[in-house]
Amino acid sequence: MYGLSKSIEALIASYGSHGLVNHAGDVNLPSRKSIEAILHGLGELIFPGFREDESLDHTNLYSITAERVYHIARSLIREVEKSLAFSLRNHIASRSGKNACGSEGCHAAAELIVNDFFDELPRLREMLDLDMKAAFKGDPAAKSLEEVIVSYPGFEAVMVYRLAHFFWDREVPLIPRIMSELIHGSAGIDIHPGARIGESFFIDHGTGVVIGETTVIGNNVKVYQGVTLGALSVKKEEAGRKRHPTIEDDVTIYSGATILGGQTVIGRGCTIGGNVWLTESVSPYTMVYTKTDQSVKTGLEG
Amino acid sequence: MYGLSKSIEALIASYGSHGLVNHAGDVNLPSRKSIEAILHGLGELIFPGFREDESLDHTNLYSITAERVYHIARSLIREVEKSLAFSLRNHIASRSGKNACGSEGCHAAAELIVNDFFDELPRLREMLDLDMKAAFKGDPAAKSLEEVIVSYPGFEAVMVYRLAHFFWDREVPLIPRIMSELIHGSAGIDIHPGARIGESFFIDHGTGVVIGETTVIGNNVKVYQGVTLGALSVKKEEAGRKRHPTIEDDVTIYSGATILGGQTVIGRGCTIGGNVWLTESVSPYTMVYTKTDQSVKTGLEG
Amino acid sequence: MYGLSKSIEALIASYGSHGLVNHAGDVNLPSRKSIEAILHGLGELIFPGFREDESLDHTNLYSITAERVYHIARSLIREVEKSLAFSLRNHIASRSGKNACGSEGCHAAAELIVNDFFDELPRLREMLDLDMKAAFKGDPAAKSLEEVIVSYPGFEAVMVYRLAHFFWDREVPLIPRIMSELIHGSAGIDIHPGARIGESFFIDHGTGVVIGETTVIGNNVKVYQGVTLGALSVKKEEAGRKRHPTIEDDVTIYSGATILGGQTVIGRGCTIGGNVWLTESVSPYTMVYTKTDQSVKTGLEG
Amino acid sequence: MYGLSKSIEALIASYGSHGLVNHAGDVNLPSRKSIEAILHGLGELIFPGFREDESLDHTNLYSITAERVYHIARSLIREVEKSLAFSLRNHIASRSGKNACGSEGCHAAAELIVNDFFDELPRLREMLDLDMKAAFKGDPAAKSLEEVIVSYPGFEAVMVYRLAHFFWDREVPLIPRIMSELIHGSAGIDIHPGARIGESFFIDHGTGVVIGETTVIGNNVKVYQGVTLGALSVKKEEAGRKRHPTIEDDVTIYSGATILGGQTVIGRGCTIGGNVWLTESVSPYTMVYTKTDQSVKTGLEG
Amino acid sequence: MYGLSKSIEALIASYGSHGLVNHAGDVNLPSRKSIEAILHGLGELIFPGFREDESLDHTNLYSITAERVYHIARSLIREVEKSLAFSLRNHIASRSGKNACGSEGCHAAAELIVNDFFDELPRLREMLDLDMKAAFKGDPAAKSLEEVIVSYPGFEAVMVYRLAHFFWDREVPLIPRIMSELIHGSAGIDIHPGARIGESFFIDHGTGVVIGETTVIGNNVKVYQGVTLGALSVKKEEAGRKRHPTIEDDVTIYSGATILGGQTVIGRGCTIGGNVWLTESVSPYTMVYTKTDQSVKTGLEG
Amino acid sequence: MYGLSKSIEALIASYGSHGLVNHAGDVNLPSRKSIEAILHGLGELIFPGFREDESLDHTNLYSITAERVYHIARSLIREVEKSLAFSLRNHIASRSGKNACGSEGCHAAAELIVNDFFDELPRLREMLDLDMKAAFKGDPAAKSLEEVIVSYPGFEAVMVYRLAHFFWDREVPLIPRIMSELIHGSAGIDIHPGARIGESFFIDHGTGVVIGETTVIGNNVKVYQGVTLGALSVKKEEAGRKRHPTIEDDVTIYSGATILGGQTVIGRGCTIGGNVWLTESVSPYTMVYTKTDQSVKTGLEG
Repeated sequence: MYGLSKSIEALIASYGSHGLVNHAGDVNLPSRKSIEAILHGLGELIFPGFREDESLDHTNLYSITAERVYHIARSLIREVEKSLAFSLRNHIASRSGKNACGSEGCHAAAELIVNDFFDELPRLREMLDLDMKAAFKGDPAAKSLEEVIVSYPGFEAVMVYRLAHFFWDREVPLIPRIMSELIHGSAGIDIHPGARIGESFFIDHGTGVVIGETTVIGNNVKVYQGVTLGALSVKKEEAGRKRHPTIEDDVTIYSGATILGGQTVIGRGCTIGGNVWLTESVSPYTMVYTKTDQSVKTGLEG
Repeated sequence: MYGLSKSIEALIASYGSHGLVNHAGDVNLPSRKSIEAILHGLGELIFPGFREDESLDHTNLYSITAERVYHIARSLIREVEKSLAFSLRNHIASRSGKNACGSEGCHAAAELIVNDFFDELPRLREMLDLDMKAAFKGDPAAKSLEEVIVSYPGFEAVMVYRLAHFFWDREVPLIPRIMSELIHGSAGIDIHPGARIGESFFIDHGTGVVIGETTVIGNNVKVYQGVTLGALSVKKEEAGRKRHPTIEDDVTIYSGATILGGQTVIGRGCTIGGNVWLTESVSPYTMVYTKTDQSVKTGLEG
Repeated sequence: MYGLSKSIEALIASYGSHGLVNHAGDVNLPSRKSIEAILHGLGELIFPGFREDESLDHTNLYSITAERVYHIARSLIREVEKSLAFSLRNHIASRSGKNACGSEGCHAAAELIVNDFFDELPRLREMLDLDMKAAFKGDPAAKSLEEVIVSYPGFEAVMVYRLAHFFWDREVPLIPRIMSELIHGSAGIDIHPGARIGESFFIDHGTGVVIGETTVIGNNVKVYQGVTLGALSVKKEEAGRKRHPTIEDDVTIYSGATILGGQTVIGRGCTIGGNVWLTESVSPYTMVYTKTDQSVKTGLEG
Repeated sequence: MYGLSKSIEALIASYGSHGLVNHAGDVNLPSRKSIEAILHGLGELIFPGFREDESLDHTNLYSITAERVYHIARSLIREVEKSLAFSLRNHIASRSGKNACGSEGCHAAAELIVNDFFDELPRLREMLDLDMKAAFKGDPAAKSLEEVIVSYPGFEAVMVYRLAHFFWDREVPLIPRIMSELIHGSAGIDIHPGARIGESFFIDHGTGVVIGETTVIGNNVKVYQGVTLGALSVKKEEAGRKRHPTIEDDVTIYSGATILGGQTVIGRGCTIGGNVWLTESVSPYTMVYTKTDQSVKTGLEG
Repeated sequence: MYGLSKSIEALIASYGSHGLVNHAGDVNLPSRKSIEAILHGLGELIFPGFREDESLDHTNLYSITAERVYHIARSLIREVEKSLAFSLRNHIASRSGKNACGSEGCHAAAELIVNDFFDELPRLREMLDLDMKAAFKGDPAAKSLEEVIVSYPGFEAVMVYRLAHFFWDREVPLIPRIMSELIHGSAGIDIHPGARIGESFFIDHGTGVVIGETTVIGNNVKVYQGVTLGALSVKKEEAGRKRHPTIEDDVTIYSGATILGGQTVIGRGCTIGGNVWLTESVSPYTMVYTKTDQSVKTGLEG
Repeated sequence: MYGLSKSIEALIASYGSHGLVNHAGDVNLPSRKSIEAILHGLGELIFPGFREDESLDHTNLYSITAERVYHIARSLIREVEKSLAFSLRNHIASRSGKNACGSEGCHAAAELIVNDFFDELPRLREMLDLDMKAAFKGDPAAKSLEEVIVSYPGFEAVMVYRLAHFFWDREVPLIPRIMSELIHGSAGIDIHPGARIGESFFIDHGTGVVIGETTVIGNNVKVYQGVTLGALSVKKEEAGRKRHPTIEDDVTIYSGATILGGQTVIGRGCTIGGNVWLTESVSPYTMVYTKTDQSVKTGLEG
């Protein structure tokens, strides 16, 4: 293996000449591994007793909770600080000028955001309580509320979305997207943290669901596997405009349906059938389904 | 970070007021992490030499096997016991009154089930041998049987289904669903442990496949990515009825096909084409495919 | 738990009688866990500073790189050697007679391949630079190049494909398939390592994408979630023939489209609409989309 | 390896017949591993920034400290509770009737003790500050105070003694002894937690030092390696009486000296020379040394 | 750090020229780390419930024990096999021609030895029961038998000696010495595995105790810290002869005493005082102590 | 556990008021844990194949060595840099003005020192080869050279001394002392890194050996357990002077001997008997031993 030293030199040279690509020697990006650990910790904080072995009771609940809060807070502040510093260095304008910290101010800005986040946690738990009940009600196969918490990837994806959305809302770069891709990886459900989703949202099975950045979803909406809420136009210039549909309250969208466009509004109470392809708005309380036109041949081999 | 103590209090209060949601201080649920370790261990027991580094030979096969059996048995008993105790506490009636242990009896009941499970393992291996051969035969890209074992997610999903189904059949709550969601997370294939699936079953590629709780599948069935075997009705009251289709022997279902309904029967030897949408039964030896009606415009930019 | 010793005996007996299935006591297969660690290490080598916590600067970049190269090289050689030895034992003919090492020669052959691989790495980085820029340009939601590297599963899947394809090209068995299934598991994108893919390739969202073994893809191609580039015939006898389509330069294929067949050519500059089903060739600069034929009922409940 | 099942049976039988020895199925003893982790954590709490990699600053000191306190408190309470329950079960009378909790009260008693312990920590840090300065002053080889903290085993042994003594004083069984043996193992210094040691105590080199249960040591005492402060009588009936010497303020005891007996008092300001053997008291400001009577032979080989 | 490649070459060259020292490319020696894990496992097997967190009860004792036995047996066989192969390669004659396996036979020989070892374990536990009771009886500071098991390094050293001696007796090279040095490292007690030690042996405090290879110790012997039972002659030619003393039943040896010589016999019932230096035999029931001749100066500073 | 927040405040306050003791917020000290990992890595580099499981052969020796060198070099540079920066901040004058880096220069100075260290390693291996042979020759109980490497704590202590002495010689603060205390902890042998020790040095058994900062030891010296080479004066003002003895070539010092004083010279070829107490020089080829004056009483109980 003596020949490798030449390869090492070539690689180092490649790092130099493709400097833009690599990040060496510069402000550190938030770490995917840390974000993963933070999400895991938040799961334990939100559903104490569900995600780990240690048995909780009234004697240790307070100290376990306090320990977790301090630990997660510290990790979050560090990652948020790195994200803000990254924005600053790359002159990535935030949408509203929020978080426009000079490099010394990034830590203080991060602390503020994380403090707000923990303030918000009890409300987040109430939202998730509603999501959980929506899942239980919406799936005849669910035998208990606990089953939803320990085994429904759609519920987990909504939880991560709600966490990621908080940081998106505060215009923290990168972290919300890393969060949404972590759950995309494990649940196959791709909800952009920029989407706005109401109460009691349920995704069943969920693999292949895509919900775009500017989607707006009302209350009591139910979505099945393979549903896309996407954009018609994918031109870079469109960035910033509303490119994804609006789904009003009490809508159900069956598996494989595709709804596209920023002006497309699915009215309250609609049912969108499986595999439907929609690029225009639908009035409230409408049912849309595909007329299948299928050929049938008998007596053939598969 | 002094401000966090207020957040901690609020979170503790939220645990109190949303007591139903949380599990603190009560019977422990089975642990997702333990179930994951058990599945990993069973994979090594079922395919010794395939899943780990340690090299096996005739001198150590017996002791490695014995060690694994005792280790997994103990973990399984603990998790099954927790599941049974959970049912008991929540007055979740088991389908047939099986496992109706009082709280002292849950350990004994768990031991019985796990003993049966290990008795069953050699037969499970025979089933998986057939599944493996079906995968090899069904995919021209497969170069060897070993390739199926080490790299086919569809095969892995069927293995986990067969394990989970054993516990479903014994009416152990939660564990089968945790198992099926673990493989759903990693393979994107969602087979409910309640489904009944015959011999030599093969899922190719597999991402997005959904097979519902009351599905019945015969022998020599082949299914591609994105296939849904689902329910027409998703009302909670339907829980317990047969809501998902029946697929007879020797059927092939191509990618993206959707077959719905508890009375829908796909007869022996049928071929269901890609993206087909079916809510009614199909006679044996029929070929069903979508007539695509597509527009073509020339000279446009992409 | 005294009863388990009978189960252990039965399992050992089952290992004996189903000897073909199991691998005990024979040449070791490459380990999935090692391949996973190798892929992780290569990710750090290709994008130094992006995948881990340790901060890099000009003082330690050389030594970190050298350490990684030596470490990964050693693991890769071991796994490649096991793969070649496996082929040899199973009389699996390589396509071109490459790597036809006798059992003593497998180590030397493996060293050669791994040396070539590290020689190739800088060129691979250039390819990935183009892929990254294609992703950034192709997605209005992408705010920075760094966001692509840390959070786009489509980009990660292309990276793993390019690594796996190197080993496929050198006719190393099993390893390329294990690599492609590892990323299939985490990204839901199934690219066979045998496919040939040009520059600036971008997969958006990606869950459910399937790209078959003999697919050929040109430059600047963009593909959305749920796209299948598959085979019409799935007979074992077809193995070795071109069974999957050819996609020429500058083609965009929207979500859920299915393109099948080894003779199917999608000409340069085409746009294939969502859910399109294609089994025949399309001339250059053509736009193909599905005419949706949908029923609408008003005033119904979902 | 089939023969092992007989050995397993024999071992299980041996567990049955030597029931007193084993602990299976009974109240759990405090875990050596947990006590080790607690000591490690306390080291980080007492000397923040000295024992670990993570860099501390004014922005994270509070949250790291809070997290550590809650974590260590919880572990300590669990171990103290197990210790008290062990006493109760074994009818081991505590010296003064303290901690005489019924089995339900052990948790509350443990909480009280641990709360007191954390109250005491700042005072313990003041004591250790004095010990550290005594070490620095007492050893010409010490270049800085920091060197004492990071590398003096004698200082570490005194720290562990002061922690263990707190729990001894509260009549917590087992834990103080486990603590003292952990540092005995790593530093070779055996200080019984029952000893009473004043301010500014320094042990140099330390290997082989033994300080017995009822030893009393004043302020500003310095002790070298191999010194024994032991008992004359080792009869079980003596348990409870003062069996070990008293060392008054400002005494120095050189290496290998042995001082025995509960009535032996080394007066203020004494110097005890190396290898001296003392079983009787020495008046203040006395210097005791051994008259060495040695033979010398010239011209011999070693 | 470019300059390191020269150092690497020099180091590789040094490996070549000092070939005898290094072990690269040859039969593997037993691994210190594996032996350490084996000792830890045996501790848990011998005192179930004392050394780990997992709570044992009658429902899991059997399976935990069986798992441990199979696991430790496999590790032990591997290490013993490596030791025997090492002897073979180095033509190190075993004392009695035992274990004279050809290289193919080393595995079988190792299996035999390990089987015998597990047969012997219940008897070893009986011996340790006696040692434990001797410790409890011999130390007024011991409050319970459990305290001896969890916190007496002298007891732990005797346990490791008894395990190591088994393998010494079977003429397994290296492993017994690695075992004895592991406990020497943690307890400061150096008992050569070749020594022969009777029942009810107790070492108090223990730091600095040395017991040589050919020492013979009777029943009910008690030894304090710093005691040496050593050789007069340290010439290589003496290897194999009895070089260390014989201690008969019921002897107590106080701290720092040194007893040397293979012909030196300390008769039954003797008491050897602290710091005594003995190179000749002592009749039974004798008490030997040093007449201390000490100078005392008053009024001096320390 | 609500009461702990008060304890946390008190602890934080204590950190503030005892600022000198604590290190928070300042230049990081070298980490004991990192130094431990470095020593472990150097052990593997110096004796490849002895310290770990991985089997080495001619195909992987180069890449393993290169990987280790780069890894250890990077860690060492980081720790040395921290040590130099610590000196700088604390105005601790180095003995000769070496390493007087400004804070920006500490990294470069550290790189230089570590480069020199790796240059020196082959010579260090030659020294250790001689030490190993001295141990083998000096102990009749040693059966092979390999036994010395894997199980002699005295040999390990000399290895660590030689490594630590390199850094002491380069006037790197703290690190050499941390190294010497790590081996002191595990072997009970306390060799100050400032001592100067010649070739072929052997410490047998070793527990309790102390060798002071300004000791000078010639070639072929052998030392037994409990030997002290110490200072007569322990006044802080003496720091910097020669306070510890000189031992010339070919001297043997038996267990428990104490030799004190910077002017004390033990001439070439001397033998110093067990427990001898020396504060004056001894002419070459002299044998010194203690005349033991012991009382013997018969017929007494122990």
